[in-house]
Amino acid sequence: MIRAAVVGASGYIGGELVRILTGHPNVELSAATSSRYANRRVDSVHPNLRSICPLTFSHPDDLETYDVIFLAVPHLESMRQAPELFEHGKVVIDLTADFRLPDEELFRRYYEVHHEAPELLGQFVGGLPELSREALRDADRISVPGCMATAAILALHPAAAAGVLRPEVSVDARTGSSGSGMSSGVADSHAERTNMLRVFAPAGHRHEAEIMQATGLNVRMIATGVEAVRGVQVLCRAELTESLDEKALRAIYRESYADEPFVRVVAQRRGIYRLPEPKILSGSNFCDVGFALHPGQPHVLLIAALDNLVKGGAGNAVQCLNIRFRWPERLGLEFPGLHPN
Amino acid sequence: MIRAAVVGASGYIGGELVRILTGHPNVELSAATSSRYANRRVDSVHPNLRSICPLTFSHPDDLETYDVIFLAVPHLESMRQAPELFEHGKVVIDLTADFRLPDEELFRRYYEVHHEAPELLGQFVGGLPELSREALRDADRISVPGCMATAAILALHPAAAAGVLRPEVSVDARTGSSGSGMSSGVADSHAERTNMLRVFAPAGHRHEAEIMQATGLNVRMIATGVEAVRGVQVLCRAELTESLDEKALRAIYRESYADEPFVRVVAQRRGIYRLPEPKILSGSNFCDVGFALHPGQPHVLLIAALDNLVKGGAGNAVQCLNIRFRWPERLGLEFPGLHPN
Amino acid sequence: MIRAAVVGASGYIGGELVRILTGHPNVELSAATSSRYANRRVDSVHPNLRSICPLTFSHPDDLETYDVIFLAVPHLESMRQAPELFEHGKVVIDLTADFRLPDEELFRRYYEVHHEAPELLGQFVGGLPELSREALRDADRISVPGCMATAAILALHPAAAAGVLRPEVSVDARTGSSGSGMSSGVADSHAERTNMLRVFAPAGHRHEAEIMQATGLNVRMIATGVEAVRGVQVLCRAELTESLDEKALRAIYRESYADEPFVRVVAQRRGIYRLPEPKILSGSNFCDVGFALHPGQPHVLLIAALDNLVKGGAGNAVQCLNIRFRWPERLGLEFPGLHPN
Amino acid sequence: MIRAAVVGASGYIGGELVRILTGHPNVELSAATSSRYANRRVDSVHPNLRSICPLTFSHPDDLETYDVIFLAVPHLESMRQAPELFEHGKVVIDLTADFRLPDEELFRRYYEVHHEAPELLGQFVGGLPELSREALRDADRISVPGCMATAAILALHPAAAAGVLRPEVSVDARTGSSGSGMSSGVADSHAERTNMLRVFAPAGHRHEAEIMQATGLNVRMIATGVEAVRGVQVLCRAELTESLDEKALRAIYRESYADEPFVRVVAQRRGIYRLPEPKILSGSNFCDVGFALHPGQPHVLLIAALDNLVKGGAGNAVQCLNIRFRWPERLGLEFPGLHPN
Repeated sequence: MIRAAVVGASGYIGGELVRILTGHPNVELSAATSSRYANRRVDSVHPNLRSICPLTFSHPDDLETYDVIFLAVPHLESMRQAPELFEHGKVVIDLTADFRLPDEELFRRYYEVHHEAPELLGQFVGGLPELSREALRDADRISVPGCMATAAILALHPAAAAGVLRPEVSVDARTGSSGSGMSSGVADSHAERTNMLRVFAPAGHRHEAEIMQATGLNVRMIATGVEAVRGVQVLCRAELTESLDEKALRAIYRESYADEPFVRVVAQRRGIYRLPEPKILSGSNFCDVGFALHPGQPHVLLIAALDNLVKGGAGNAVQCLNIRFRWPERLGLEFPGLHPN
Repeated sequence: MIRAAVVGASGYIGGELVRILTGHPNVELSAATSSRYANRRVDSVHPNLRSICPLTFSHPDDLETYDVIFLAVPHLESMRQAPELFEHGKVVIDLTADFRLPDEELFRRYYEVHHEAPELLGQFVGGLPELSREALRDADRISVPGCMATAAILALHPAAAAGVLRPEVSVDARTGSSGSGMSSGVADSHAERTNMLRVFAPAGHRHEAEIMQATGLNVRMIATGVEAVRGVQVLCRAELTESLDEKALRAIYRESYADEPFVRVVAQRRGIYRLPEPKILSGSNFCDVGFALHPGQPHVLLIAALDNLVKGGAGNAVQCLNIRFRWPERLGLEFPGLHPN
Repeated sequence: MIRAAVVGASGYIGGELVRILTGHPNVELSAATSSRYANRRVDSVHPNLRSICPLTFSHPDDLETYDVIFLAVPHLESMRQAPELFEHGKVVIDLTADFRLPDEELFRRYYEVHHEAPELLGQFVGGLPELSREALRDADRISVPGCMATAAILALHPAAAAGVLRPEVSVDARTGSSGSGMSSGVADSHAERTNMLRVFAPAGHRHEAEIMQATGLNVRMIATGVEAVRGVQVLCRAELTESLDEKALRAIYRESYADEPFVRVVAQRRGIYRLPEPKILSGSNFCDVGFALHPGQPHVLLIAALDNLVKGGAGNAVQCLNIRFRWPERLGLEFPGLHPN
Repeated sequence: MIRAAVVGASGYIGGELVRILTGHPNVELSAATSSRYANRRVDSVHPNLRSICPLTFSHPDDLETYDVIFLAVPHLESMRQAPELFEHGKVVIDLTADFRLPDEELFRRYYEVHHEAPELLGQFVGGLPELSREALRDADRISVPGCMATAAILALHPAAAAGVLRPEVSVDARTGSSGSGMSSGVADSHAERTNMLRVFAPAGHRHEAEIMQATGLNVRMIATGVEAVRGVQVLCRAELTESLDEKALRAIYRESYADEPFVRVVAQRRGIYRLPEPKILSGSNFCDVGFALHPGQPHVLLIAALDNLVKGGAGNAVQCLNIRFRWPERLGLEFPGLHPN
């Protein structure tokens, strides 16, 4: 049993961490902080945790020491708080964007601010088990990738690693409303947002940098907000370097993910759910990955779907925790998702 | 051609007024005010009006004089502004709650504030053509009823007027998100509000007073926010004073609404849409009214549905305008709604 | 470890049973039958179970013997199949409507057909742990109540048992689309059903009989299909026999459900989710129960919400299983639901 | 006043034609046929038309002669019925896919059946006013393009015609559920379809052929079903042949569509609705077209949105009618869409 704290527990990623850690057999969740809701019950903000989580939010200033701290504060706050948090947690798992990119310059280009703790940038191991499992076993500082980046990297990685993709790739990401965090602008109100198909990033979405970093491909990414609370789906279009049939492509993906507990290859000939869809993944830690070849042309469509708050955030972080502490990787992450949903 | 102004045109009711008046053949919409968005284009807030409405919002202080002013400001502001507006508009049609109740005491009980212009309370004619058509022909001050009140009154009125209902009636109202206005609280954000079934008024909703006023019944009303942008549906349960079969009840409703251009009696034996549903009414000025008898018991269910922004607000106001200026009642209100939608 | 079979596993209730039983530590799911999909993989119909459930559907004729059989066939088929199933399963848990009512006559009145196995009607114990826990410990034939009935009974029971309700109660039930089963009519198509508020049972819904049976109250129930896949909410209006304040009522509910693992009393003064809402219950076995008093009047609103496929079906059945086999009641039912969702 | 008939009026496109033609001042809708619903009221299938359209469906065999016949039968039936319909209607406007492609061979490749009336293929004028207005003035046989094709063509046309696009273009289309017609499969049921992001055409969607035909570009198209009843949005990615800034691109689009009554150029710097979204277009005949340049790269994103049943079908057909009969183009098509919606 290890002691854990969630810093920034009143947001959606934070609440999801609380949900998962409360059900984790090897973790005692000892603190959930929120400056705004300090001293109020956690379940007053996350009503799904009524009778599940008896904690009240503590103030961030009242941290003790923990075996692990999950950092789920807003972007750009993590780089301010991280140095101090290192004194409170042996292992720090950051879920913000602040330590995902390897260098100051790239960070400034994509986030348009100066990094406030550039000396820490290289110290974090990327928290994507499918790519960095070995490094995670000994990592004390882990930076979990963005939700859309996770999906795109998992969609592209096997083909990219096999060398069958030309480097120019377009990524079309679709995301639900929880991706914006607990929001209170008119643009995020139900009346304005429901049923929307809003191309909020017609070029150069920030996750682009992470995807390029991880895959070595030259990615142009756009992002659309769609009707959903949870859920990310990415469609990646690429050109093949060589002629591949479906069987060969399937073999590449199957082999790449054969031992992965949370990646499923979904590319069916029949049925309703032939390709990855987030609809059936809410609450689960799966990332479904699929593909379709363009008949008679060297073009391929690579698709991935996940729950942005789970495999795209809190669940992925807990998977990293399981690896770091040498536990079974599925621990606390068994919920399979619902059908219908 | 008359000149009209919409005061408070950046909200949802205000935008709907602009939409309808822009398409009205006898009205020249001369001003649309908004203190917040003054000097910005109306279509920057209401994007459906691009290429339709060339106006920019003017500041409320810059009003000239008009044949009619529609007042669509937030509740409790109307009672402050109305006296001055009387100098700018020959006819004033108020869409707020401020002048719906007949006396100060009732207003205080339901709105929990003192009325700031109690001397005006009796001067407004209730803007529900189905009940007050004659009075509206000469009315210079009109107060349009609340969206849920309109639905409930139209559901109850024929049976109440025919004397076949016992006085104790329960009203269960369901409403979409646009009913809260252009909102920016977390509770109204898409992630928190979508798919909700939120009993936000478990007792004593404010529209209760209006319904009692109009029907003479003793109403207990509750209200639930449901998944929808537009749309109100009310279910009224009542007991019958005498034994009535469906045919007799249908005759009462048919006769009552025989000449009404915007009330349809919907109580079908087959088909998908047997009873009133707001789903097919978005954008239309119809209020569909239906009923169902409890076999073998003296209980009746009376149902109504409408678009809260149209027949429950802006459309109803324009119908009053048409009556007041002795124009055909359907003018500018011809859109029938969509199927499917 | 006991051996279990799900008969009728391709429907929504059946799929939910497979999901829960696959994750249940004391159960080996040995068979999932479907006449229509025999020999196809279970995850071809229930895609959330990919990599979770390796079974293929077997044909109903190929049943062996099991410690427990869950019967999730369509209504009216259970009464035909039950007698033979008794030979294959020591314990039979029926999730259809066929054995919920105590006598032939009542069944005929509500279901409008003759019961084909009336001699079995009295043999089933009602599968609602909150009311029949003791009897369930030794029951070999269990009949799980309807989803809306479960919600209404749990909303009404404490007050009814405490004798504080007058006998006339109105129940207004709202239900999502999965309640109709895996459906293929035009009325259930997305275009016709989405955003609907369809009063499909304006009087005399079948679950009415179950509620009256369980509570001793005289219930008039109506039901509305609402926008949701999963989820039931019931609003029960009743009159109080004596003057009660909120504190007294809360005490009645708290005490009644103090030891219940899956009923939460939800009646908050602040926050977004003050009263029970199914939105946050998808996938969970909770039934949230709340109430609101009408100020100054002897009227009370009793509300309950649940996931129709879990606490309103499969989860409730597994809770009965846990009781029957003297296991901890929460086993296999730990998923708490999601926020936001 | 001309006499019109809608053949195949019980479907969604057919119902939309009835709605628009009933409100058209120059058209008398004389017949609405349906073999399935013959002799039933039109409003029994299209409940939005209650009190609006008094027609009953007539049997297709009972056609008289009309000034114009709209053909809204299922795909592949039009090519069987068209020859006979030419005897009943001076002008025939076909809304199916059967006469959209110019030659038999291309039709077979995309539709995988032999065309049954290949001799007629060249006789139809393409019903897209923005490209073929002149030809439509004298056309007696008009073939309205597909909904996604219309959006993509209008998004691409100005840039393609200006010669600023390289020929390789990818099109990502998103479509609501009404695009599948009045459907009754499980895949289209609400429980399975709601909130979906279903890549139903991962390569080679049929509308691809129409887009290539109209634009001269080499298009690779994929299509995703999204949560919406009405609405199509297309995202087209292309490379520019020359360096263009936003101002220059805007000029090309503005000029191209300056006189178009139903195309709006939407590419805003601020506001909630900066780029085309179908959410605000339901019921309207607008196609909104926008664009975004990739900073520092020769890549452009061209976007269009429309209501698939209106500008993507029935409304576009009526616009063609207005052109053919030399009426003002907006006649009967004035509804601007709703905000919020």
